[in-house]
Amino acid sequence: MFVKNCWYVAAWDHEVLADTLLARTIIGESVLFYRKSDGTAVAIDNRCAHRHAPLSLGRKEGDAVRCQYHGLKYASDGRCIEIPGQDTVPAKLCVRSYPVVERQRWLWVWMGDPARADEALIPQTFSLADPEWRYKPGYLHYDTDYLLICDNLLDFSHLSFVHEKTLGGSPNIAQARPEVTRIPRGLRVTRDVRNTVPAPYHARLASFPGKVDRRFAYDFVVPGVLMMKTHAKPVGTADDDMTGALQFHSCQALTPESENSTHYFFMQAHNFRLHDATITEAIYQSLCTAFEEDRRMIQAQQNLIASSSPAPMHPIAADLALVQFRRVVQELLDAESGVPVRAPQPRAPRGASASKLPAGTVPAA
Amino acid sequence: MFVKNCWYVAAWDHEVLADTLLARTIIGESVLFYRKSDGTAVAIDNRCAHRHAPLSLGRKEGDAVRCQYHGLKYASDGRCIEIPGQDTVPAKLCVRSYPVVERQRWLWVWMGDPARADEALIPQTFSLADPEWRYKPGYLHYDTDYLLICDNLLDFSHLSFVHEKTLGGSPNIAQARPEVTRIPRGLRVTRDVRNTVPAPYHARLASFPGKVDRRFAYDFVVPGVLMMKTHAKPVGTADDDMTGALQFHSCQALTPESENSTHYFFMQAHNFRLHDATITEAIYQSLCTAFEEDRRMIQAQQNLIASSSPAPMHPIAADLALVQFRRVVQELLDAESGVPVRAPQPRAPRGASASKLPAGTVPAA
Amino acid sequence: MFVKNCWYVAAWDHEVLADTLLARTIIGESVLFYRKSDGTAVAIDNRCAHRHAPLSLGRKEGDAVRCQYHGLKYASDGRCIEIPGQDTVPAKLCVRSYPVVERQRWLWVWMGDPARADEALIPQTFSLADPEWRYKPGYLHYDTDYLLICDNLLDFSHLSFVHEKTLGGSPNIAQARPEVTRIPRGLRVTRDVRNTVPAPYHARLASFPGKVDRRFAYDFVVPGVLMMKTHAKPVGTADDDMTGALQFHSCQALTPESENSTHYFFMQAHNFRLHDATITEAIYQSLCTAFEEDRRMIQAQQNLIASSSPAPMHPIAADLALVQFRRVVQELLDAESGVPVRAPQPRAPRGASASKLPAGTVPAA
Repeated sequence: MFVKNCWYVAAWDHEVLADTLLARTIIGESVLFYRKSDGTAVAIDNRCAHRHAPLSLGRKEGDAVRCQYHGLKYASDGRCIEIPGQDTVPAKLCVRSYPVVERQRWLWVWMGDPARADEALIPQTFSLADPEWRYKPGYLHYDTDYLLICDNLLDFSHLSFVHEKTLGGSPNIAQARPEVTRIPRGLRVTRDVRNTVPAPYHARLASFPGKVDRRFAYDFVVPGVLMMKTHAKPVGTADDDMTGALQFHSCQALTPESENSTHYFFMQAHNFRLHDATITEAIYQSLCTAFEEDRRMIQAQQNLIASSSPAPMHPIAADLALVQFRRVVQELLDAESGVPVRAPQPRAPRGASASKLPAGTVPAA
Repeated sequence: MFVKNCWYVAAWDHEVLADTLLARTIIGESVLFYRKSDGTAVAIDNRCAHRHAPLSLGRKEGDAVRCQYHGLKYASDGRCIEIPGQDTVPAKLCVRSYPVVERQRWLWVWMGDPARADEALIPQTFSLADPEWRYKPGYLHYDTDYLLICDNLLDFSHLSFVHEKTLGGSPNIAQARPEVTRIPRGLRVTRDVRNTVPAPYHARLASFPGKVDRRFAYDFVVPGVLMMKTHAKPVGTADDDMTGALQFHSCQALTPESENSTHYFFMQAHNFRLHDATITEAIYQSLCTAFEEDRRMIQAQQNLIASSSPAPMHPIAADLALVQFRRVVQELLDAESGVPVRAPQPRAPRGASASKLPAGTVPAA
Repeated sequence: MFVKNCWYVAAWDHEVLADTLLARTIIGESVLFYRKSDGTAVAIDNRCAHRHAPLSLGRKEGDAVRCQYHGLKYASDGRCIEIPGQDTVPAKLCVRSYPVVERQRWLWVWMGDPARADEALIPQTFSLADPEWRYKPGYLHYDTDYLLICDNLLDFSHLSFVHEKTLGGSPNIAQARPEVTRIPRGLRVTRDVRNTVPAPYHARLASFPGKVDRRFAYDFVVPGVLMMKTHAKPVGTADDDMTGALQFHSCQALTPESENSTHYFFMQAHNFRLHDATITEAIYQSLCTAFEEDRRMIQAQQNLIASSSPAPMHPIAADLALVQFRRVVQELLDAESGVPVRAPQPRAPRGASASKLPAGTVPAA
């Protein structure tokens, strides 16, 4: 079950070039992405309406696409406009067309009711295209449920363990308690880690004279989009003083491919030494290494869950954000299936101290 | 569900040599093929009746076969004739024996009631063994439902698209309207394509001074056997004048292995330049290339159908023969399961003009 | 369905070294094996109670193990003793702990009720650690139901066929009739093969002047543990005269991994020429070759059963022990699920002559 009335990241802009027919499966549906001659992106059902051959094996003809099995030709709005050997085309012969928006290097597709495709719901990912920031784009494919990856991104305590030798560097990260607040369609998480060691990967970017303060501040919204400001700077600097700080902005998006596979689009931008390509590359490579650490753990977790007899999971205090986020998703699913909204259930995990939540929200159960 | 009372092509003759024990799965059943010392082909259940070890891992002993797990020995009619360590053999201990006929280089096996195994039902595949014709035998394995391949062979409009650069060469093939008539247990399809370009692969075989007339005329009968005469000759030649023509005869047989896999036996024979081995090889290689084009498309089609949410297919005029053929198959399945034959449903696809069908047959719905 | 109240061989001792975290799935449950600093073996659920990440990707910290996803730390009895970022640990937060016993180089784990884990139920495998015997340890993984491998070990008639060129050498083995008697939780099987040829693999070990007498005498108990004395010696020697005999003792254990996969621990020890390493190696290599012969057959058998339409198996006289053993297993399963014990059904297979069984046991049906 996936939320349908939602913008999903479908591709990096450079994955759909002028002559590309890209088939990508989003929440279980195979969608064809291509560009019209004016560069506008198109998203239509990849299945030819005739015998379900993939249009991605077809041929672009101007702004239309022709199925290369039996030659049916479709306009960019999904209408069939030619059937070889047949004089007329039935009006209802068409494939589904999806709203698609290109915004700052990502192509977003709306999988639900087109009438509700409000572009204002597209998350703010400014650093994807901002001359003050630089990055190298990344993509990973996971063979796991996307929610397990959401869990990972909603609890940065794992940096101390999974990423001990890359993004983490200290148990301090897990010991710090984040602030978690509910925002529209998601959560805001802020984790301050003070008086700690730099992360191992920082050594590729700068020399800190001693300990540092680190901050991770991000919004995480459905379906699984993270927009994060993060920095490390010499310990004791005033909060608004960014002299000597390493500052980053990261955009990451999870798009379910199927119940058990996920597309992962990511980047982490820097705003310092913009013209030093080795900095951009070092950050990208550090991220790739760390994200493989995550994938190894999450894939093993998924495999273990799938192969074992069912057993409950035990919530801990660190689950505050991930439990909240699953509630956000469930509320949207319930709304789409017409289920009445459930009353909150005010139970906290043993050992979990209260975290700051706006009035009316519910601590992790 | 497969038709059982039917001859299926099980193997090329050269796949079962004097010392071969060939296991091949036909409509879901693993069958053992081998030859007696007089060369006669044998087909029995590949499962030892004792513990279901495969007899294909066993040993030929004269005309019998011995299971090499615990040593049970079976006569060529399937009766168990020896059990090591046991003085007597229960009379009912046997494996199933299948009627098998070797005809013009193909071994045909009857998967249904042996009492109904009428050799007159074996299709006429004369060019498989005729001194006036020459060919190189071919075999392909598909991981798809055999009916999707039947569909392919019943609508040659795909030559214009899938085989544009091999067997096709022009949209004319898809534009021509075939004649489709019902014959016993199948269909007869004739497609004349006049005043068109030669196929790309013709260039390996002859030089036509200009445009050509092409004809494809074939019978296609259950389970999925095609026997086709085809030619290309200079445009405007009288219909019965074969001077300057390239003439071919092709035999192709689809044998379901399982619900989603298929054996494909094929050849295309030529009756010109019989002693030029490069001609035989050129035709074979052209076919292999083209059949890989088909397989790529059909496999992608099957994968898309299997991985997507269900959706209807939309019939078009070109589906006339394939819709008819699926009806033939369904009638045979219904007859085997005792379902009363359904009344014809006279609905034609929108945009489909009438095709010639014998009285009492039904246009494609 | 597996018997739970049972000791299963989980590992060779050398598979769990001082710093090893070994995950091994036993009857469907992923279990973590490691050693405390005093060398004692530990077996706990491999799933972190928090989010089911595998503890085998974690880190040993003294006698405890820390999950390297979010840092929960577990004592060797399964209690969680630390949760990063949280002051207290809920008392009930723990993973399951399994009784584990190290005995003569094998680690045995008890998968059922710990209160019933009686070490007296561990089978006698003396030759695994006896200065008078020498061997090289072996392990195989099967992708089959463990019961098909039990069947194999309970009917040595297959030596004449599967192992014709390795452990067998003659149809005599299949022709000999074994004695089968019921023992607690299993069967005792004795097969004397007199006046026969040496096995092909004997030629690596000794030269017999002529024919030999061979004996295979073993206990086979749940879940699938074989302890076997076997010998070959010059024909006609008195039964208790071991001059000139090749004597072996073999321990083999089948541990189901899942419904369709199995761990196979094995060795065959010799008590002659103890200091000749080539003898030890020759026996080991002969066994490996022969066990691959078994695996090929049993895997093919399993595949054929899984892919074919259901059909009955036909029992023969040689099935006496395997049918009995499946009954032993079923009785234990019934007892665990509270099913009343069934009355014996006194039916013998056709052609099977009576075998010696203690009063009250039942011939193979």
